Amino acid sequence: MNIETLKNLLKRSYAPYSNFQVAAIAIDEDGKEYHGVNVENAAYPSGLCAERSALFGSVAYGGKVGTFKEIHIIAKKLDEISPCAGCRQVMTEFMPMDALVYQYSNDGSKVRINKLSELVPYPVHMKDIQ
Amino acid sequence: MNIETLKNLLKRSYAPYSNFQVAAIAIDEDGKEYHGVNVENAAYPSGLCAERSALFGSVAYGGKVGTFKEIHIIAKKLDEISPCAGCRQVMTEFMPMDALVYQYSNDGSKVRINKLSELVPYPVHMKDIQ
Amino acid sequence: MNIETLKNLLKRSYAPYSNFQVAAIAIDEDGKEYHGVNVENAAYPSGLCAERSALFGSVAYGGKVGTFKEIHIIAKKLDEISPCAGCRQVMTEFMPMDALVYQYSNDGSKVRINKLSELVPYPVHMKDIQ
Amino acid sequence: MNIETLKNLLKRSYAPYSNFQVAAIAIDEDGKEYHGVNVENAAYPSGLCAERSALFGSVAYGGKVGTFKEIHIIAKKLDEISPCAGCRQVMTEFMPMDALVYQYSNDGSKVRINKLSELVPYPVHMKDIQ
Repeated sequence: MNIETLKNLLKRSYAPYSNFQVAAIAIDEDGKEYHGVNVENAAYPSGLCAERSALFGSVAYGGKVGTFKEIHIIAKKLDEISPCAGCRQVMTEFMPMDALVYQYSNDGSKVRINKLSELVPYPVHMKDIQ
Repeated sequence: MNIETLKNLLKRSYAPYSNFQVAAIAIDEDGKEYHGVNVENAAYPSGLCAERSALFGSVAYGGKVGTFKEIHIIAKKLDEISPCAGCRQVMTEFMPMDALVYQYSNDGSKVRINKLSELVPYPVHMKDIQ
Repeated sequence: MNIETLKNLLKRSYAPYSNFQVAAIAIDEDGKEYHGVNVENAAYPSGLCAERSALFGSVAYGGKVGTFKEIHIIAKKLDEISPCAGCRQVMTEFMPMDALVYQYSNDGSKVRINKLSELVPYPVHMKDIQ
Repeated sequence: MNIETLKNLLKRSYAPYSNFQVAAIAIDEDGKEYHGVNVENAAYPSGLCAERSALFGSVAYGGKVGTFKEIHIIAKKLDEISPCAGCRQVMTEFMPMDALVYQYSNDGSKVRINKLSELVPYPVHMKDIQ
């Protein structure tokens, strides 16, 4: 994962309503990278965050749900970013709980790294509903 | 909040696809209770969880976003329940981070109580996007 | 359904991000009214529209999914409103296809009434996925 | 768009909860194809349909919101498919209203083609909320 690639990805964000650009790169167990940006909608609840665009979009191209080992995220306007909890729920299906979430400052100079388990204590998983 | 009321609420859950019934009672700063159950949809992503049904549904009846002090949840089939992270994101808008989430066993005999801050470390708030 | 009640409901909308207030009143087969407003979230996709807040919120209070006969909607800033298609998907679970959607001008002086079947041609229903 | 490619894409669907596999290929104005499958989640509302996975996932790779001219969809178990209305709302942001939605039978032998305007009468667009 190249931080310049991640920063450049911000230009592809579609955020005409919030003007809040976010980009994400998710990496599966084979080291393959999948890119995503946030994509908004006139009906706000029908938009999608960058993290989820990267993850959901990956599956048709061979991304294996449950095996992702890293996700890297950045926001154009934030010195400190965290994924929204809606995205965290999707991460719990795509990644083991010890997978790493890299959260960069907007200039890429700083990063906070958390295990997914640190962002989603007491997760809800498939075993819980079946 | 009466645990029998919460347990009885499970009967109103509409979960024909998962057969996984959940109920929630959210309480605002005035002590007023708002009820919710999960409501599914043939297009699975278009359904909604019990916690969010209680919170979103409250606002038209006077529930004030940002002031809720407690939410109580139960699932018919779970000895230990946690709210999904999608619901946790909505809670961060409805509740201060020290509000309490009561998570009951299905027979109501046990409860795990967490501050919202324990369920959503590093939350995303309005101040972050504006 | 009283149009003044619907207009007054707009005051309860929580729309600090879009400043676009919407209200809805859904009516079940017994004539009971359920109210809803749009409720936004700092993470835009985690918000919910007024129509869905009214419908989802109703179930814990006795609203029967599949039996709603009318829904009435209004937006503070729109002379002509339509429900977003995300809400229409939820309506197809809550209402028969000949149920009526009342779409008011913001001053309440005009209304366009459509059968749900006119707003969702070729709907997706439970029978399709089972 | 090759129908065999679309049918083969079904194998990548992640649908352990519904066992209802769907695939989609969206095509932008330059003729570039973007693939998607449905991806479910233990918390059902946190999953995503194939059509939206294809569209949202495309943007980081150069897909231009507003310019898509076609989307092709298929479901493993359906002789006749339609996109859910949640997906239709996203299509209204990604495609002009005269763009075409190709809805195939599961064996690929039949197709119903609709303009987006036929699937979403009275759409909600950006101009409506600003």
